[in-house]
Amino acid sequence: MNLPLLYDWRKLQLFCESVFIRAGVPPAYAATVAESLVEADLRGVDSHGVVRTSIYLKRVVAGRIQPEATPEIVSDGTATVLLDGRNNFGSVVGMKALSIACERAERHGVCVVGVKNSNHFGTGAFYALKAIERNLGLMVMSNASQTMPPTGGVRPFLGTNPLAVGFPAGEELPFLLDMATSVVARGKIIVASQKGESIPLGWAVDKHGNPTTNADEALEGSVLPVGGPKGYAISMFIDILSGVLTGAGYGSSVNNMYENWKEDQNVGHMFLAFDIGKFMPIDQFKRRMDHYIRSIKAEPKAEGVSEILIPGELEHRKTVERKRDGILLPAKVVQELYDIGEQYGVPLAPAACELYEGKTS
Amino acid sequence: MNLPLLYDWRKLQLFCESVFIRAGVPPAYAATVAESLVEADLRGVDSHGVVRTSIYLKRVVAGRIQPEATPEIVSDGTATVLLDGRNNFGSVVGMKALSIACERAERHGVCVVGVKNSNHFGTGAFYALKAIERNLGLMVMSNASQTMPPTGGVRPFLGTNPLAVGFPAGEELPFLLDMATSVVARGKIIVASQKGESIPLGWAVDKHGNPTTNADEALEGSVLPVGGPKGYAISMFIDILSGVLTGAGYGSSVNNMYENWKEDQNVGHMFLAFDIGKFMPIDQFKRRMDHYIRSIKAEPKAEGVSEILIPGELEHRKTVERKRDGILLPAKVVQELYDIGEQYGVPLAPAACELYEGKTS
Repeated sequence: MNLPLLYDWRKLQLFCESVFIRAGVPPAYAATVAESLVEADLRGVDSHGVVRTSIYLKRVVAGRIQPEATPEIVSDGTATVLLDGRNNFGSVVGMKALSIACERAERHGVCVVGVKNSNHFGTGAFYALKAIERNLGLMVMSNASQTMPPTGGVRPFLGTNPLAVGFPAGEELPFLLDMATSVVARGKIIVASQKGESIPLGWAVDKHGNPTTNADEALEGSVLPVGGPKGYAISMFIDILSGVLTGAGYGSSVNNMYENWKEDQNVGHMFLAFDIGKFMPIDQFKRRMDHYIRSIKAEPKAEGVSEILIPGELEHRKTVERKRDGILLPAKVVQELYDIGEQYGVPLAPAACELYEGKTS
Repeated sequence: MNLPLLYDWRKLQLFCESVFIRAGVPPAYAATVAESLVEADLRGVDSHGVVRTSIYLKRVVAGRIQPEATPEIVSDGTATVLLDGRNNFGSVVGMKALSIACERAERHGVCVVGVKNSNHFGTGAFYALKAIERNLGLMVMSNASQTMPPTGGVRPFLGTNPLAVGFPAGEELPFLLDMATSVVARGKIIVASQKGESIPLGWAVDKHGNPTTNADEALEGSVLPVGGPKGYAISMFIDILSGVLTGAGYGSSVNNMYENWKEDQNVGHMFLAFDIGKFMPIDQFKRRMDHYIRSIKAEPKAEGVSEILIPGELEHRKTVERKRDGILLPAKVVQELYDIGEQYGVPLAPAACELYEGKTS
């Protein structure tokens, strides 16, 4: 079929939202999930974008996500909260955790929200950006199903457990780190597989523990932790904070959303929000951030480097660009979304960019 | 001179303590600094051990460390505290920060202590181990003077800003990550230089930005961040939390303790303590930690690997071994300590292991 490949972000978000609503997701939650997916596409993190619509829906249909459940505080220590996600979408649970963390940090200076019984929560940046809008600092992490061997091991045991940290600046862009603890995010290998592309050596090993450039073989094998034992240790500490401490799954008991249809994922997260004003006036902090960022960007550059980038800067530019020019999706993803639209009675076509006529599959 | 190279840790600690007291450091603070140094040697982190006695003393003599100053709380938000180290030793300031963080976490579930006007604080593991003894979780970080370029840069701008995370287990050893955000700790290059050894390619670049295996050239150049842009981003976030947010130095305003004799170091730290009991009973947490650790260690091993190690395990074994067999110091370090002993009227000889007669310089 000759489907367009370029999509308007607002219309694409509306498409996803409508599909989720038709699938029985309460409208407010459907909006959150759709926003989380499309924001990932806007930021260029295609691996966490609308490519995930299909698997999220499948888990709802299979009863492995409970879209009507209300996440619930099960232990309340004022500046520490344990939230039971009750197996709703990760982004719905995550938004609830974020909201608690931010409100309480504003009152108590800091708040730690541990989360159990959740699902894949999208990108950490999604939450960090919302905390930054409130002039708060945020550290957020999540465990994930098994994809990386421990140092010295051969098969997946740990997830590529991501860590995101966001702090506002003044006139400069905010600082926004969002990283998987693998050499690269596993999602990038999923995208390579979707596009039928190969991957660089060093990203992953196949199921026998041998280095591979084949994305499909890599997905059957393991991605490697960043910096060897350091990435392994960081991934473990994220698993301890997100999983062992919260009562969520950890290690092999975080279930794979693509493969395990008999059990809930039981992902755990950890949200830490900081009230900057407890340390110094926010304006002073922002001036210091601006100075810091400008100093780094003014450093002499290596040969062939035109600019030193701050974490999150590239993704910010991509967002501006994709909001303006549209989001170009791989044909495989478009086909998947089209089929989903057909299934749920929501046409995909109106989400396409009218401006752009050349790109069709 | 024919100086012994093997030292008893208790006697070595007493030697350092005595020297610091003679240099005008109040006895309680002298004990803390000596303990912090010798514990690093015990754990095999020689780069942060008694090799630093000399530089610490020089900074005291130069008036660049104020050993009699009392670290002071300058902003108190109950679960958030800003501590002014008043330019005392980093480990003295760090122990004060740790003590506040732990006490308050026990009361409020979590406590964040930001620290400014401090100095090099030794290893993060020193503090994490003490939190673990109290059944608390700890995340601790510090910024450091410039040694790493940002991704795309050529000269040092960021420190190898370390991160340590500790959580207790039950019957298993505690989890204890303690890492620099560089490929390796700069201290390892200092040790290589002390020993006159070369370093592996990929650890560092020389002052022109070229790869080098020469430890001295590397010390004049830059060490590289772990995992490229990921290490760069982690180092930045540690600098933001430890420096920008606390009012300490950050980036180029964290002064080098070896080179800058006109200004205080103005190092910043950040201590986050977690009361595990706010999330689940401590015994349950410890059982989960034991299960987690045992599961990882039981994973199939790569060819040539006899055992999968948990972060901190190697250092624990080294501690047991060095407490039993003594600490073997490089001749250069022994000579330095001997000279210090002469200068301050504290003989080094009684600290040597009597058991071991073969090893002399």
